[in-house]
Amino acid sequence: MLRTLAGETVSPPPIWLMRQAGRYLPEYRATRAKAKTFLDLCFNPDLAVEVTLQPIRRYGFDASILFSDILVVPYALGQRVWFVEGEGPKLDPVTQAADLGRLDRSRVLASLQPVFETLRRLRRELPTETTLIGFAGAPWTVASYMVEGASGSDFARLKDFAYRDPDGFGALIDLVVAATVEYLSAQVEAGAEVLQLFDSWAGVLSEPQFRRWVIAPTRAIVDQLKQRCPGVPLIGFPRGAGMMYADYVRETGVTAVSLDTTVPMSLAGALQERCPVQGNLDPRALVVGGRALREEAQAILAALKGGPFVFNLGHGIVPETPPEHVAELIKIVRDRNA
Amino acid sequence: MLRTLAGETVSPPPIWLMRQAGRYLPEYRATRAKAKTFLDLCFNPDLAVEVTLQPIRRYGFDASILFSDILVVPYALGQRVWFVEGEGPKLDPVTQAADLGRLDRSRVLASLQPVFETLRRLRRELPTETTLIGFAGAPWTVASYMVEGASGSDFARLKDFAYRDPDGFGALIDLVVAATVEYLSAQVEAGAEVLQLFDSWAGVLSEPQFRRWVIAPTRAIVDQLKQRCPGVPLIGFPRGAGMMYADYVRETGVTAVSLDTTVPMSLAGALQERCPVQGNLDPRALVVGGRALREEAQAILAALKGGPFVFNLGHGIVPETPPEHVAELIKIVRDRNA
Repeated sequence: MLRTLAGETVSPPPIWLMRQAGRYLPEYRATRAKAKTFLDLCFNPDLAVEVTLQPIRRYGFDASILFSDILVVPYALGQRVWFVEGEGPKLDPVTQAADLGRLDRSRVLASLQPVFETLRRLRRELPTETTLIGFAGAPWTVASYMVEGASGSDFARLKDFAYRDPDGFGALIDLVVAATVEYLSAQVEAGAEVLQLFDSWAGVLSEPQFRRWVIAPTRAIVDQLKQRCPGVPLIGFPRGAGMMYADYVRETGVTAVSLDTTVPMSLAGALQERCPVQGNLDPRALVVGGRALREEAQAILAALKGGPFVFNLGHGIVPETPPEHVAELIKIVRDRNA
Repeated sequence: MLRTLAGETVSPPPIWLMRQAGRYLPEYRATRAKAKTFLDLCFNPDLAVEVTLQPIRRYGFDASILFSDILVVPYALGQRVWFVEGEGPKLDPVTQAADLGRLDRSRVLASLQPVFETLRRLRRELPTETTLIGFAGAPWTVASYMVEGASGSDFARLKDFAYRDPDGFGALIDLVVAATVEYLSAQVEAGAEVLQLFDSWAGVLSEPQFRRWVIAPTRAIVDQLKQRCPGVPLIGFPRGAGMMYADYVRETGVTAVSLDTTVPMSLAGALQERCPVQGNLDPRALVVGGRALREEAQAILAALKGGPFVFNLGHGIVPETPPEHVAELIKIVRDRNA
C-alpha cells in the first residue's frame, strides 16, 4: 500500500474495502451489540480496535482503516449527534452564521482522545505489513450533515445556506478545516500511516460551488498537513465529482485519488498518469457475486494494474454482502494469472 | 429553439425550464386540485393543456413541454402505478424476468390516447413561436421505477436484477425501448416538434453497465426515431453521467444534450463543439435568487452563449421556488448587455 501511494506499480495491487469493518460481518454485529450506541462503539477503544481488526484477521487486507465515523468532528465541536437505527445520523442543525457560536474548536482534541488511543493500540496489534489508515470527512460533506441535521437527499438547506450567505457558510467551512487539520495531525501522531478524506457529497455542486466548497477547503487541509505531517500520503475521495475529478487532483495536491463507481476506465487511466488511483468496484456487484463480480473486477484490474493502483470499492460495502464474496474478490485481485 | 437545435448560435439563447409547469405556480396548484390523482391530471386533456400553457402565459418561455410523467409508459404497459402525496410514485415491482409476462406492449398506444389529444390541442393553442416538446423517460430510468417500485435511493433491487440476470433485465429494457419508440413517434404525429429523453438515474452505473443500459438503449431509440420521424431533434439528458457525457453524445447520436448542474463549463464548451447543449443552472440558486442567481446564471451564459445553447436548469424546478425569481432569471438571460 505505501509503495503504491509512493507511485510504484505493485503486482498484485494492494486491496482494502471502504467500510470493511461493518455489518456484513457476523463478528462485527456481535461486537456492535456490546455498545449501547454507535458513537459508544466509536469511542470505546476496546471495541473499536476489535472491529477494526476483524476484517484483517478474516481476509488479510493490505490496509486497515480506523473504525470511526466522519461525524465525530461535529460531535467534538459540541454539536449534538446521535444515530437512529435504520435512519442514520441525526444532528441539531446549524443553519445560519449565528449558530456557529454553539461550536467550540478548543475542545476537539480532548473529545477525540479515545480515537487516538484506538489508533495507538491498532499500530501495536496490526501485522507489520498492514498499513494503518486514518480518516476524516471533507469539510463540504461534514458541513452537509451539520446543516441538514441528517443524511441529505436534495441538500436544500445546505445549498441555500451556501448561496444565501457565502461568508457565513465559509466561516463554518473554515472551522471544519481547522478542526480536521488538528484531528488528522493527531491521528498521524497516534500511528496513522495514510489519511483518507471522504467527500461523499462532492457530486451535487455546480463548478463555481465545487471550486469554493470542495477544492479550496481540501487544498487548505492538504497544504497544512504537508507542513505538519510531511511524507504522510493523503487520499482524496470526491465521490461523484464526475468531470471535476481531474481539476480536483491537480488543484488540491492530494497524494492519490479514490474513484467512485461511475468513473470510466479511460479517464481513470488518465488520472493514474498524474497520481495513484484507488477504486472502484460497484458494491452491488460484490453483493451479487459470480460472473458479474468477476467481469466488473477484471475490467478494473485490466485497465489499472499497469500503474500505481489500490483495489477498492467505489463506495462503502453494503450490509447484505455475503462474506464469501469478499474472499472471492480477494482471490480475483491476487490471482497473478488474471 | 428549433434554430438552436439545428446548430445555430442564437442570441439571446432560448430558455425553458424542466418542470416549468408545476407546484411552484399557484395557478398550477389550483388546477391540480381539480383532478383526483396525479395520473388523472396527466390523462385529462383539458387540465393537462391548461397546466402546460400556464408558464407560457406567465413568462413567455421559448418552449413548452407537454405536461405528463415518465411513468405513463409502465402504466400503459399494464403495470399498476400510483402516486402517494409527499412520497412520490409507487409501482407493483417487476423484479425478475418471469414478471415480464404481466406487461403487454400491444396496449401502449391505446392507453396513451389522452396524451396525444393533449399534444394536438397544445399545437393549436400555443403561440406559433413557442416550440412544443414531447418527452419520455429513458429505458434505464423507467426500468428503475419498474423494478424498485418507487424512487430509488441505492437502486439495490435494480442493479441486482441487472447484474444477476443481464438477459432477463435486457428483455425488460428492450420492451421499454419498443414502447418508447412507439410512444415518441405518436407524440410527433400529434404535434411534438422536439423530443427529450430523461435519464434521471444515469449517474449510478459503472462504465460497462452505463454502456449496456444507458448508451445502447438510447442509441436504439435514436436510430428508430430517425427512421420514423426524420428531422425531429432529440435532446438526451443522462443526468449525472459525469465523465461519460462525451461518450454518450458521440455514441447515441442524440441531436443535443442536456447537462446537469455538476457539468463544468470547460467541458460543457467541449461538448458544445459536437452538438447543441442545454442547461444547467442549479435549481437551488433559483430558489435563493439575488446575487447567487445572477452569478451562477451569468457564469453559464458567459461560457456557452458563443455556440448553440438552450438555457435551462440542471434538474427540475423545485416547488418552493418563488415565481418572481423565474421572471428575474428570464430577464438575466434575455438581457443583451449581460
